[in-house]
Amino acid sequence: MAPVGSKRGILERLGAGEVVIGDGGFVFALEKRGYVKAGPWTPEAAAEHPEAVRQLHREFLRAGSNVMQTFTFYASDDKLENRGNKLTFTGQQINEAACDLAREVANEGDALVAGGVSQTPSYLSCKSEDEVKKIFKKQLDVFIKKNVDFLIAEYFEHVEEAEWAVQTLKATGKPVAATLCIGPEGDMHGVTPGECAVRLVRAGADIVGVNCHFDPMTCVKTVSMMKAAVEKAGLKAHYMTQPLAYHTPDCSCQGFIDLPEFPFALEPRILTRWEMQQYAREAYKAGIRYIGGCCGYEPYHIRAVAEELAVERGFLPEASQKHGMWGSGLEMHTKPWVRARARRDYWEKLKPASGRPLCPSMSTPDGWGVTKGHTELMQQREATTKEQLRPLFEKADAKY
Amino acid sequence: MAPVGSKRGILERLGAGEVVIGDGGFVFALEKRGYVKAGPWTPEAAAEHPEAVRQLHREFLRAGSNVMQTFTFYASDDKLENRGNKLTFTGQQINEAACDLAREVANEGDALVAGGVSQTPSYLSCKSEDEVKKIFKKQLDVFIKKNVDFLIAEYFEHVEEAEWAVQTLKATGKPVAATLCIGPEGDMHGVTPGECAVRLVRAGADIVGVNCHFDPMTCVKTVSMMKAAVEKAGLKAHYMTQPLAYHTPDCSCQGFIDLPEFPFALEPRILTRWEMQQYAREAYKAGIRYIGGCCGYEPYHIRAVAEELAVERGFLPEASQKHGMWGSGLEMHTKPWVRARARRDYWEKLKPASGRPLCPSMSTPDGWGVTKGHTELMQQREATTKEQLRPLFEKADAKY
Amino acid sequence: MAPVGSKRGILERLGAGEVVIGDGGFVFALEKRGYVKAGPWTPEAAAEHPEAVRQLHREFLRAGSNVMQTFTFYASDDKLENRGNKLTFTGQQINEAACDLAREVANEGDALVAGGVSQTPSYLSCKSEDEVKKIFKKQLDVFIKKNVDFLIAEYFEHVEEAEWAVQTLKATGKPVAATLCIGPEGDMHGVTPGECAVRLVRAGADIVGVNCHFDPMTCVKTVSMMKAAVEKAGLKAHYMTQPLAYHTPDCSCQGFIDLPEFPFALEPRILTRWEMQQYAREAYKAGIRYIGGCCGYEPYHIRAVAEELAVERGFLPEASQKHGMWGSGLEMHTKPWVRARARRDYWEKLKPASGRPLCPSMSTPDGWGVTKGHTELMQQREATTKEQLRPLFEKADAKY
Amino acid sequence: MAPVGSKRGILERLGAGEVVIGDGGFVFALEKRGYVKAGPWTPEAAAEHPEAVRQLHREFLRAGSNVMQTFTFYASDDKLENRGNKLTFTGQQINEAACDLAREVANEGDALVAGGVSQTPSYLSCKSEDEVKKIFKKQLDVFIKKNVDFLIAEYFEHVEEAEWAVQTLKATGKPVAATLCIGPEGDMHGVTPGECAVRLVRAGADIVGVNCHFDPMTCVKTVSMMKAAVEKAGLKAHYMTQPLAYHTPDCSCQGFIDLPEFPFALEPRILTRWEMQQYAREAYKAGIRYIGGCCGYEPYHIRAVAEELAVERGFLPEASQKHGMWGSGLEMHTKPWVRARARRDYWEKLKPASGRPLCPSMSTPDGWGVTKGHTELMQQREATTKEQLRPLFEKADAKY
Repeated sequence: MAPVGSKRGILERLGAGEVVIGDGGFVFALEKRGYVKAGPWTPEAAAEHPEAVRQLHREFLRAGSNVMQTFTFYASDDKLENRGNKLTFTGQQINEAACDLAREVANEGDALVAGGVSQTPSYLSCKSEDEVKKIFKKQLDVFIKKNVDFLIAEYFEHVEEAEWAVQTLKATGKPVAATLCIGPEGDMHGVTPGECAVRLVRAGADIVGVNCHFDPMTCVKTVSMMKAAVEKAGLKAHYMTQPLAYHTPDCSCQGFIDLPEFPFALEPRILTRWEMQQYAREAYKAGIRYIGGCCGYEPYHIRAVAEELAVERGFLPEASQKHGMWGSGLEMHTKPWVRARARRDYWEKLKPASGRPLCPSMSTPDGWGVTKGHTELMQQREATTKEQLRPLFEKADAKY
Repeated sequence: MAPVGSKRGILERLGAGEVVIGDGGFVFALEKRGYVKAGPWTPEAAAEHPEAVRQLHREFLRAGSNVMQTFTFYASDDKLENRGNKLTFTGQQINEAACDLAREVANEGDALVAGGVSQTPSYLSCKSEDEVKKIFKKQLDVFIKKNVDFLIAEYFEHVEEAEWAVQTLKATGKPVAATLCIGPEGDMHGVTPGECAVRLVRAGADIVGVNCHFDPMTCVKTVSMMKAAVEKAGLKAHYMTQPLAYHTPDCSCQGFIDLPEFPFALEPRILTRWEMQQYAREAYKAGIRYIGGCCGYEPYHIRAVAEELAVERGFLPEASQKHGMWGSGLEMHTKPWVRARARRDYWEKLKPASGRPLCPSMSTPDGWGVTKGHTELMQQREATTKEQLRPLFEKADAKY
Repeated sequence: MAPVGSKRGILERLGAGEVVIGDGGFVFALEKRGYVKAGPWTPEAAAEHPEAVRQLHREFLRAGSNVMQTFTFYASDDKLENRGNKLTFTGQQINEAACDLAREVANEGDALVAGGVSQTPSYLSCKSEDEVKKIFKKQLDVFIKKNVDFLIAEYFEHVEEAEWAVQTLKATGKPVAATLCIGPEGDMHGVTPGECAVRLVRAGADIVGVNCHFDPMTCVKTVSMMKAAVEKAGLKAHYMTQPLAYHTPDCSCQGFIDLPEFPFALEPRILTRWEMQQYAREAYKAGIRYIGGCCGYEPYHIRAVAEELAVERGFLPEASQKHGMWGSGLEMHTKPWVRARARRDYWEKLKPASGRPLCPSMSTPDGWGVTKGHTELMQQREATTKEQLRPLFEKADAKY
Repeated sequence: MAPVGSKRGILERLGAGEVVIGDGGFVFALEKRGYVKAGPWTPEAAAEHPEAVRQLHREFLRAGSNVMQTFTFYASDDKLENRGNKLTFTGQQINEAACDLAREVANEGDALVAGGVSQTPSYLSCKSEDEVKKIFKKQLDVFIKKNVDFLIAEYFEHVEEAEWAVQTLKATGKPVAATLCIGPEGDMHGVTPGECAVRLVRAGADIVGVNCHFDPMTCVKTVSMMKAAVEKAGLKAHYMTQPLAYHTPDCSCQGFIDLPEFPFALEPRILTRWEMQQYAREAYKAGIRYIGGCCGYEPYHIRAVAEELAVERGFLPEASQKHGMWGSGLEMHTKPWVRARARRDYWEKLKPASGRPLCPSMSTPDGWGVTKGHTELMQQREATTKEQLRPLFEKADAKY
């Protein structure tokens, strides 16, 4: 395990040029384990099934994560109650439970706790700046009470809402990271990655970057565009990327949400551990030092990041006790032809087959292109009705 | 959750025509979580990290499993010590810890505990029937002491060794299931699936079938061949299938071990939940009533089996509280085009893209074809040396 | 060009162990050039546009063909008038014109003329042996009058009809070749390739094999099964293969007719010249000495066969004056990275991309499985009506 | 056939808003037929084998072409003698023979004769404007003597050389078309398509566009960029596109030359007739009225263009007598499931499989990026030596 010590702060670490490894996305991982519902994607499991959430935190810690993000994605009250989602715990209970779990596991190793907020249905429904900021403030009160180490505003499709979030978080005095879920084409209103980054830094973000929506290499490209613009503007920041663990070469501006496979048939797109090592190297080369993951990441993906950067960090993660570097554990395999795969060049060169000869390699994204301001995107508290679904089904079928 | 009750035995359930849902493979799932080492694939985590093993049992239970298999795969002493594998726990300690964990979680729901043995390095190294049976006997002593509900002899490539296992297990008086890891081409010596099944039933197996090595549809096909032969021979048995969660259209007789992607680049082959439902239906139609999974299965795959057969079983698994049938949870999604996917026909028809345009859809399996009797397959206690690896690397490279 | 000489007969050549190279399929090649209509596939171009047919003969001759097959595929009267096909030339005129063209070009080099008959609508419509033989006889009268060098009965799905054809042709005293359009699964009634071959030899065929319907490697496999059975039966024959130039890994017994892409979207399946050389080598190794092609073959495919077997034959074809072996002509290319492809190992190893990321690599064949005896397969003289098409469209759409 | 009549000039036709259909590429088509050598790609067949060239002209005419381009691609003296290419005819003989053949066939229908020049080794080797123009002038003397109807400067990678060509051609007083072989990224020096087009119009081109190097849809996109820029500059021109018949989604600025499959393994990328109809429609919608083809086009591809635009043109091409629109000829097919494909929606929706499960769908282009000015690109009269090839092979192998 990483040496447990003084628990230096996030900016102290990044300022010293250290690599900080984030964790992976909890909603997708816990959906597969049976504790999160796809659709609402809300994190009530923090209160309902703490043992499952604790275990996942622990696996990421063992895999090398330096940050335990509170499992509070979409834990704003307006989101928790959106479209008929029914919960037995209040938003405050969920946020508090999530903070406690993150702290408990962070204390088992060299990890910090980060409290996170993300985009709100209120913004998409054109609520005012004041109303949206109140939403963030409510989660923030819990984070401050629980004394998290720093704050993350993540998963924003519109830079404007992200700026509001950063401003709200910054007021606490804690370090603030801000990541948009955008690609090289920029935010939903066409603001370029570079301009987005500059605006976020000016709003007070210490760390900027992207998370979710695109595959690792696309995220590195996007953050590189951000970095170039921030530097050109004469500003200073640290850089961060927490991509999908899914290949998304066919996505346009809205990322994997548009893919026909989202969210229940993304399996063939999952990155291997070797592709993940390649990503970690590229991110490092691009000057990004906060390197984590989002949807699709399993603990072994984070371990792969930690193994790739073991020399830079000076140590291997605890979970590498159960993983031979570059497949060397296969030297112990029963079959000789599998032992013949116990080497780096074998895995680096391999182009893995899909085993799906009746499937294509790319999809045509849906690309409805509706976002903040479109009536189709207005959120509601009540469950979606059959009458509301019918025109959506028809619009979708017309694509083919 | 399934109604907890009298805990009727496995044969009682199958005899009544009930569907029994197995669990998924632990070694692959725990490898990704950081607790099992690929290569030796041994289950020392049962003793080292019981909380991780317990959590996985619990997830399968919530997903609908009626059987908690003791995490004792490859837990025979000769395997635990093979090729330089070093362990801090004895075989007995591992087997006992695994029994305790399985029982603890089984008691939380309507599940039975099954003690499992699998093929041994001793057999591959041409040891005698007596020696091989002694290996099985040692694990069996623990299972009897811990009073498991029934026994499984699984993952045998040679029917002869499986017969020895069945004979050993049968002597305890417990019900015995036996599954080979073979496909339609039969065992490593070319014995057909039908003949294998007849021999296993004659050796005393109450339940016969296949596990691992091939994808679900191939396994259903193989078990159908077994069933036809058993019935033709005028014998009676129950049928069982615990396949991979990976597509393997390109495999020949030795299954996914031969695939170049084994074991570290199988991601693009992972089945979706919808493909899993299709499998559950086909297995059911083929008259198979013990339906579970093996390597690659995550809890949501077992949940998919339980959801497909919910009408036949009369209830949904507990984890379905967090899963809308056929994507209906997406009615609560923020984006209208994703709400348009909240329906069965969308997911049934979808041909998921791999997102990997530089990769092929099929691989050329290695097919060295060496097995029991070949000197290349002799096992050893000491670690494989560099000198031993060199000719293997060369042989492998000659393929391209 | 091949040395023009005594024009030894087909059996004389094969008897001496020589390689005889056939030509490629005329209907598909001339459909692309604008002279044959897909659907009826009839060869009226021999009379309508002799210059186009002559040119294609000449291109195959230059490419290395030793046989000019008369362009008389489907030139039986019952086929020429099937399903509303309207022609301005009589069957006799077409057959005569085809013979004249083949002879004219054959005389320009070292090629023989072969008169060909193929399966008839009459057989599919359950007409008697006598009626079917009369159909063959009518074409045969022209071949004898025009004094072709030998006869070919090709493209038969049922061995019974092929036997009738062989018997009819054999009565002329000319050498007879017989090829079925079957794969390893055998003819439409399930007769194995081996049994088919034995029956054809017993009916009088001097040369047996397969043509059309399957890709080269599948055809080599099928003819190998034929050869083994003929030898096992203590009989003697020469062997012949004239496959498709399309990859057909996804076909079942009826071959490429069942593929959804047949006949207008087969492009991505076309073999490269290098794949063709590999085929020629495998066919040669399998003991096949009459090696040609069928649908999809362009002159450069035949040239590839001739280049692969140049050492065995002792010369290169005339068209190789315009083709560097194994890409060596690229030494003269303007761009250095293309000059870097002027070598055998580059082309042998290349796995060509489809440039079609939205397409799968395999299709699900239609597999209606109807053949001789099914009412759905009864042929008719009149055009198919809209009323007849409607149920076919519905049946086809039900597949998806 | 198209009504033969007054033979109105190219500008008269385009000025009247008519669709003018070009022909397809001769070098690739005749390479497959055995008359052109890949590597030098020179057109000596015009003199050596006039019957083969005449036949191809005739097939394009029957398919609907309104233009017979003289088969004079790369027929400049410096190219004819490049890298050891040996010819038995002089440049003048080849150019004259090509003019005579084009005129002979043009007179059989409603087609014009276009004399064509293309980029020169002299330019790549940094010769002066004067020297390069002299090269063009030499071919031009033949075209004027033979009185072609108009002139085409085609296949230029650098707009500067194309301007020189246009200036030279314009001096004759004949109408001039100019097409670059570029994509949306612009010419080899990064000049955008829009700027290229403006410069060509200012140099005197009446018709501008692109040919070769990219697939149809990419070419339509590029010409659309040209059109927008020309209109924005307040200039007037007609627009033209003669793309590849190969899918090239993976190409960067140098197009299909960079693809590993170029030129001998492009088969899986060949467009179907239905994809070609889609292209013709898109080109028409984009305001392009001179629509033809280049490498990879076979006569049936041009027929597909003519069929798609039959309503706009007012007639079908002669070759459509042998082609049912949208597969309707299949109504006459023997098999009922093939008759079920006799309809437009079947073929429009079909995603054709490659039959190549071991191949990827996209390639990584070579992208050496060397062009005019790089020493690696200097041309030479003598054959490339083994010593010159060795470093190229090594550089190429380093890619993998």
